[in-house]
Amino acid sequence: MHLRAALLPLALLLGASPVRADEGMWTFDNLPLAALKAKYGFEPDAAWLKRLQLGTLKFPGGTGAFVSADGLVITNHHVGRSWIQQVSTGKADLIRDGFTAPGRAGELKVPGLEVMMLVAADDVTAQVDAAVPAGASDGEALKARRNALSALRLAREQATGLVCEPVVLYQGGEYWLYRYRKFRDVRLVAAPEVQVASFGGDADNYTYPRWNLDFSLFRVYDQDRPYHPEAFLPFTAQPLRAGDLTFISGHPGMTGRKETLAQMRYMREVAIPFRLRTLARLRKALTAYGGTSAEARRVSSDSIYAVDNSRKRLEAQLAGLAKAGAFESVEAQEGALKAAVAADPELKARAGDSWARIDGAVAEERRLLPEYALEETWGSALLGFALTLTRLPAELAKPSSLRLSDFKEGTLAATRDRLTNSRTIVPSLDAVRIRTGLEEALELLGPAHPFVQAMLGGRTPADAAQAAIAGTRIQDPAYRRELMEGGQAALDASQDPMLVLARKLDPFNRASRRQWEDRVQGVLAEQGARLAEARFKAFGKSQYPDATSTLRLSFGPVATYATGSGTLAQPFTTFLGLYDRHAGWGGNAAAAEGGLWTLPQRWLDRQDRLDLRTPFNFIYGCDTVGGNSGSPVVNLRGEFVGINFDSVYEGQGGYYIYDPATKRAVAVDARAILESLRKVMDAQWVADELSRP
Amino acid sequence: MHLRAALLPLALLLGASPVRADEGMWTFDNLPLAALKAKYGFEPDAAWLKRLQLGTLKFPGGTGAFVSADGLVITNHHVGRSWIQQVSTGKADLIRDGFTAPGRAGELKVPGLEVMMLVAADDVTAQVDAAVPAGASDGEALKARRNALSALRLAREQATGLVCEPVVLYQGGEYWLYRYRKFRDVRLVAAPEVQVASFGGDADNYTYPRWNLDFSLFRVYDQDRPYHPEAFLPFTAQPLRAGDLTFISGHPGMTGRKETLAQMRYMREVAIPFRLRTLARLRKALTAYGGTSAEARRVSSDSIYAVDNSRKRLEAQLAGLAKAGAFESVEAQEGALKAAVAADPELKARAGDSWARIDGAVAEERRLLPEYALEETWGSALLGFALTLTRLPAELAKPSSLRLSDFKEGTLAATRDRLTNSRTIVPSLDAVRIRTGLEEALELLGPAHPFVQAMLGGRTPADAAQAAIAGTRIQDPAYRRELMEGGQAALDASQDPMLVLARKLDPFNRASRRQWEDRVQGVLAEQGARLAEARFKAFGKSQYPDATSTLRLSFGPVATYATGSGTLAQPFTTFLGLYDRHAGWGGNAAAAEGGLWTLPQRWLDRQDRLDLRTPFNFIYGCDTVGGNSGSPVVNLRGEFVGINFDSVYEGQGGYYIYDPATKRAVAVDARAILESLRKVMDAQWVADELSRP
Repeated sequence: MHLRAALLPLALLLGASPVRADEGMWTFDNLPLAALKAKYGFEPDAAWLKRLQLGTLKFPGGTGAFVSADGLVITNHHVGRSWIQQVSTGKADLIRDGFTAPGRAGELKVPGLEVMMLVAADDVTAQVDAAVPAGASDGEALKARRNALSALRLAREQATGLVCEPVVLYQGGEYWLYRYRKFRDVRLVAAPEVQVASFGGDADNYTYPRWNLDFSLFRVYDQDRPYHPEAFLPFTAQPLRAGDLTFISGHPGMTGRKETLAQMRYMREVAIPFRLRTLARLRKALTAYGGTSAEARRVSSDSIYAVDNSRKRLEAQLAGLAKAGAFESVEAQEGALKAAVAADPELKARAGDSWARIDGAVAEERRLLPEYALEETWGSALLGFALTLTRLPAELAKPSSLRLSDFKEGTLAATRDRLTNSRTIVPSLDAVRIRTGLEEALELLGPAHPFVQAMLGGRTPADAAQAAIAGTRIQDPAYRRELMEGGQAALDASQDPMLVLARKLDPFNRASRRQWEDRVQGVLAEQGARLAEARFKAFGKSQYPDATSTLRLSFGPVATYATGSGTLAQPFTTFLGLYDRHAGWGGNAAAAEGGLWTLPQRWLDRQDRLDLRTPFNFIYGCDTVGGNSGSPVVNLRGEFVGINFDSVYEGQGGYYIYDPATKRAVAVDARAILESLRKVMDAQWVADELSRP
Repeated sequence: MHLRAALLPLALLLGASPVRADEGMWTFDNLPLAALKAKYGFEPDAAWLKRLQLGTLKFPGGTGAFVSADGLVITNHHVGRSWIQQVSTGKADLIRDGFTAPGRAGELKVPGLEVMMLVAADDVTAQVDAAVPAGASDGEALKARRNALSALRLAREQATGLVCEPVVLYQGGEYWLYRYRKFRDVRLVAAPEVQVASFGGDADNYTYPRWNLDFSLFRVYDQDRPYHPEAFLPFTAQPLRAGDLTFISGHPGMTGRKETLAQMRYMREVAIPFRLRTLARLRKALTAYGGTSAEARRVSSDSIYAVDNSRKRLEAQLAGLAKAGAFESVEAQEGALKAAVAADPELKARAGDSWARIDGAVAEERRLLPEYALEETWGSALLGFALTLTRLPAELAKPSSLRLSDFKEGTLAATRDRLTNSRTIVPSLDAVRIRTGLEEALELLGPAHPFVQAMLGGRTPADAAQAAIAGTRIQDPAYRRELMEGGQAALDASQDPMLVLARKLDPFNRASRRQWEDRVQGVLAEQGARLAEARFKAFGKSQYPDATSTLRLSFGPVATYATGSGTLAQPFTTFLGLYDRHAGWGGNAAAAEGGLWTLPQRWLDRQDRLDLRTPFNFIYGCDTVGGNSGSPVVNLRGEFVGINFDSVYEGQGGYYIYDPATKRAVAVDARAILESLRKVMDAQWVADELSRP
C-alpha cells in the first residue's frame, strides 16, 4: 500500500523534476533494504548499519552522534542549550557569547548530562502478551502489559548492568526492551552564539531557506580520559550535492500516522484547536507579565519562546490536516485494512469491531478532554513538585504494579532525582501559569464545577494563585528533600500553601486520569494493537511503526520542494544568504522584530575571512519529526554530512500524514561547521580533529 | 466601510509589528488625501501630484517613468523585452547579453515603440448617460453608451490633436476621456541580461524574497534630440528604509473587487477552474510539441512561459479566493449596500433588483461559458488574422456604431496596422493551438454540436488543424495586405485553408459573442453601474474604482508580511542573496531546473567589484495588480526609490479581495540599478545621468 501524494499543482506547473522523498522511520531490525536497493541501487551491509547505530547517541531531548575517534559528540545547539546554560556563570554567558575550549584541558564538565548508546534490542512481545489474563477488559489488559514490561525491564537491567527501556511499537503490536550503555562524563567543547545558532528565532523556526548554525560539540570521557567509541561518523571529505542520497539515524519522538481516521479527525477538530486556545491564553498572560519589568521580560522570554514553538508547530500540523484531500490516503489505507479484516474470519473475530470501539473511545476522549486537560499542574514546576511530594508516601505504600507511573520501581529513582535537583524556579512565572490554568478551568468547566470550587474556594483565580505562591518554600530544593525524606508525617505537618493547593488537586487529577486510562487509553492501546496485528497479518511487516523516541533510520535525497510561498526552495543555503537576511532586515542597527536577525559582532568583523559560498543549511527528503533534532545525516559511505535540526513548515502535517511533496528535513551542512570553527570561532584544533578520518 | 483583514495567525503568534498596508488604486481626481494625512501626516500638494502624473508614462503593456531631465525613461525589463528583442539582430542578442549604449549617439531607435503621458482627464458621464434612450433594455443601453463614448472621443481627438482614450470607472458609474501626449521616437539606452532581469524565471515569478534586476532604460527623443520632459522623477539620494512610506503611480490593469458575491463565487467555482483546465491542456500540448526537436523547443518556450505565468497567477488567485473567510469582507460590504438601497425608496427603485439581475446574468454566464470560450481562435495568430480579414468587408459596409469593436472608427486603424505588420509567426505552433482548441471543443461540446461538426467536418482535431495550416499563406504580411485591400472579391477568390476555417468559425463566434453581450455583459454593465451609483449616494465617493489600465496612485510603507512558508519576509534583499540563491542551486555548473538560477559570466567575474550589501529588491504595502509593471515608486519627496515589477504569491487573491496581511508589491531598488550600471554593466555615464538631481 502506498500513500498517495497530495496534489502538487505548483510542482507540476513548473515542470519540476519528479519530487523525490522517502517515507518511513524504520527500526534497525526491519529496514526496507530491498526497496532501498531497487530505488537507489544501494544496500548498506551489516557493518555499515552497526557503525551508524553505535555512532548515534540518545542525547536528552533529542539525538547526538560520535564524530571523532576521541569521543567528540555533536548535537544541535538547541538540544545542548540547557546544558550550556548550566556551565555558564554570571561572568561567562556561554549561551549569548558562545564557547570554544582552548584545548582538551579546557573542556567544561557538564554536571548531570548523560548520553546513551543503543547496544541491543530484544523483542519481548510474546512474554508481554502472555501476561494478559483471559477475558481481561481493555483497561485490565493495559495494566497487565505495563506491569509485565516493567518486571521484564528490571530483570534485564539486573542481568546486564545496562540501562533498559521498554519500547512499544506498532500501537502495541510489538513490545521491546532496548539496552543502552550510558555515558556520565560529558564535557562541553564548543558552541556558537545562540543568535547564530537560532538566527531568525521563532519567525524562522520550522521554515526554510534557513541560516542556523545549530550545533554544539561535547566530548565523552571515561575515567577522566577521552572515550574512544566503538564507532564514530567521520566528517566527510566528499562534497554533498543536490540529489545525493542521505540517511539519518535518530530518535523521532512521536507520530500519529497509524491512528484511525476518527482519531485524526478528533485531533483536527478538537484536540489541536483546544491546545492552541490554551497556548494563546498562556502567551497572552506571559506577555502581559513580561511587560511589567525588564526582569520579568527576561525571565519570561524562554517560556514565551517555548509557547510560540508549540503554537507554530501545532498551527502547521493543523494546516496540514486541513489541506484538501489530506485524509484521502488515510481513508484508502483504512479501507484496505477493513476489507482485509472483513475477508478473514480470524481477523474479523479479533479486530472486526476495533474501529467501532476506537470510535467510542474517541467520543469519550472528546467528552473528558476539558477535565483531563485542566485538572492539571499547567506547567507550574512548583505545583508539580508539590503534587509529587503529596503523593509520594501513599504511592510507596502500594506494590509497584499498582502505583502511578512516576512512582513505579523503574522510574522512582528519576522522580526522586527530579524532586531534589537544583533547577532555578521563578515563582512569579509559576503564579502566571497557575492563574491562567485556574481562569481556563473557571471559564470552561464553570464556577459550579467541584474542581473549580475546590481550587478557588471562593477566590478569584488571581487571588488563589497568589495565595499558593506567597510564602511557599517549594522552590527550595533543601525543603523538598526534607519533605521527601520526612514521609507522611512531614507532609501532614506542613501548611505550605503550594502543598495545600496540591492536596486539593490530587483527587481530581487522579480521577480524571483514571477515567482517561479506562475509557480512552486502554481501549486505544488494546484496539490499536489488534489493528496492528491485523496489519501484520494482512500486509506483512512492510510498514514502519509510529515514532516512539527510539532509534530509527530514514533515507532520502537532498531535494527541493514547492514552497507555500510559490517557488522552489533552493537545496542549499550559503553564508552569503546569512548576511543577505541580516542586511535585508536592516542589520544590527535596525534590530528589527526584537533583533531576530542581528549577528554577534565577531561574525561581522570576520565576515571577510569566510568563504561565503560555503554551504550552510540544506534540505533533504528524509522522514523526520521532533526528536530527530541533533541526528547525524550521513552519505552512502556512512560519513557525516550534516546535523539535522528542523523540518519545513509546509510538511508539518507529516506528524499524521506523510506527503512526499512537502516533507523535507533541514540540516546544518558539515562544511559550515568546519568553516565556522576555523574562521570565526577560534576553534581550529576542533575542526582539525573533526577532519581526521 | 473598512475591509476586514483575514486571520493572521502567524503574525499574531510572532507578536509582529502591526501589519501596515494600504488599500486602494486611486484616480488622481479623487485621492484620499485626508486619510493619508491622518495616517501618515503627509499631504502631497498639487505640484507634487502633477509632477508624479506627468513623470509617469504609459508604456505598451505596462508603465514607465521619466527619470532624467534629458528624457531617460525607465520601465521593467519584462515590459521592454519585446522592444529590446526588436532591436536585436542575429549577431547581437540583446535579450541574452544585455545592452549598454556607449554614449547617446549609440542609443538604438526602436521602431514602433510609442509611450504616452497623461495630460488631462475629462468626466463625460453626463453626456454618455444622456445618450441612453428611455426604456432601453440593458443590452441596448450598453450599445448606446459605447457609441456615445466613441463619438465623444473622436470629436475630442479632432479638437485637441491628442490621443484620447475612453475610460469606464466604477463599473459604469463614471465615463471619462483621458488625453495623452504620445512620444514616437524612443531609443534603447541600457538593459541587463534577461537572466539577471528575470533571475529564477517562472519558479520565482510572483514570489519573494526575490533578486530580479527587472529594469530597462530608454530615452524619448523629439526632433532627433533628447526630450526635456515637463517633469521627471529623479533617483533619490535618501536611503530607503523599512517602514518608509512610498507611493506608486501606474496603470493597474484589471481588478474585480467591486463585483458581487455571486460574481466572485462564479470566478472561484467556474471561470478560473475552467481557464486553468484549458491552460493545462495547452501546456501539455506545447510541451509535447517542444519535445519533437531542438527548434520546436526553442520556438515553443515563450508560449510555455506565458502559459505558466497565467497558470501561476490564476492558481494563486484561486488560492486567495479559497481561503477560509475570504468572502467575509465582500459579504459585509454587499450587506451594507443592500441595507442602504433597501432604506432609500429612490435607490430601491433604481437598484433594488440589481443583485437579482446580476445573479441571473451569472447563471447565463455559467450556461454560455463553454461555447463562448471555445468558439474562438484559441490564441492562434493565423486563425485570428483570417477571421479579421473574413469580417472586414462586411463590417465596413455597416455604420461604425453597428460594427464589431475592432472595426469601429476609433480602433479600425489599429486593426489594419495589426493585419499588415510583420510579426514573426510559427505556423507549427499555431497548429498546436488550433488542434488543442478543437480537441477541447470536441470533448466539452460533444461531437454532435453544430460548431464541432462545422469545424471538424468529420476529421480528427489533428487532421482539421493540419489541413488549415498546410498551404496557408496567412503568415505572409504581403498576402494579408493583398486580401485586406482586395475587399470581398479577393476574399471570395481565395481558397486559403485558414480562411476556409475562419469562414466556418465566423457565424458561431458572432452568435456566442452576441448572446454573451445581451445576456451577460449588458446586464452586468447596466446593473453594475446602478450599484455604483447607489454606492456613491450611500457612502459618497469614498471608494476607488476597480482597475482599468489607467493612471492610479497607491501608497503604503516598506513592510514585511507573514509568508505562506511560515516566516516573515525580509523588507529588502541584497546582492548577497542573489549570489546565495545562485550558489544554493549549485551555480552555473549544476544549471538546476533548466538553468533558472544561473548567472551571466560577467556577473560572476565582477562580483568582487560590487558592494554586496546594496539593497536589490524590496516589498512594500502599496496596492497593485498586473499593469503596474514598470511603475515608478517614489518617496515623500516624490523622488524615485525603485521600480515596481511584481507582487507576492500570497496576495494574488487581491485581484478580487484586498488583504492587508499579504498584499505586497515587489520593486527593484534604485540603488541596485545604479550599482549594476556602474560596476557590471559598463554604464557609468548612464548612472551619472540618473544621479543628477
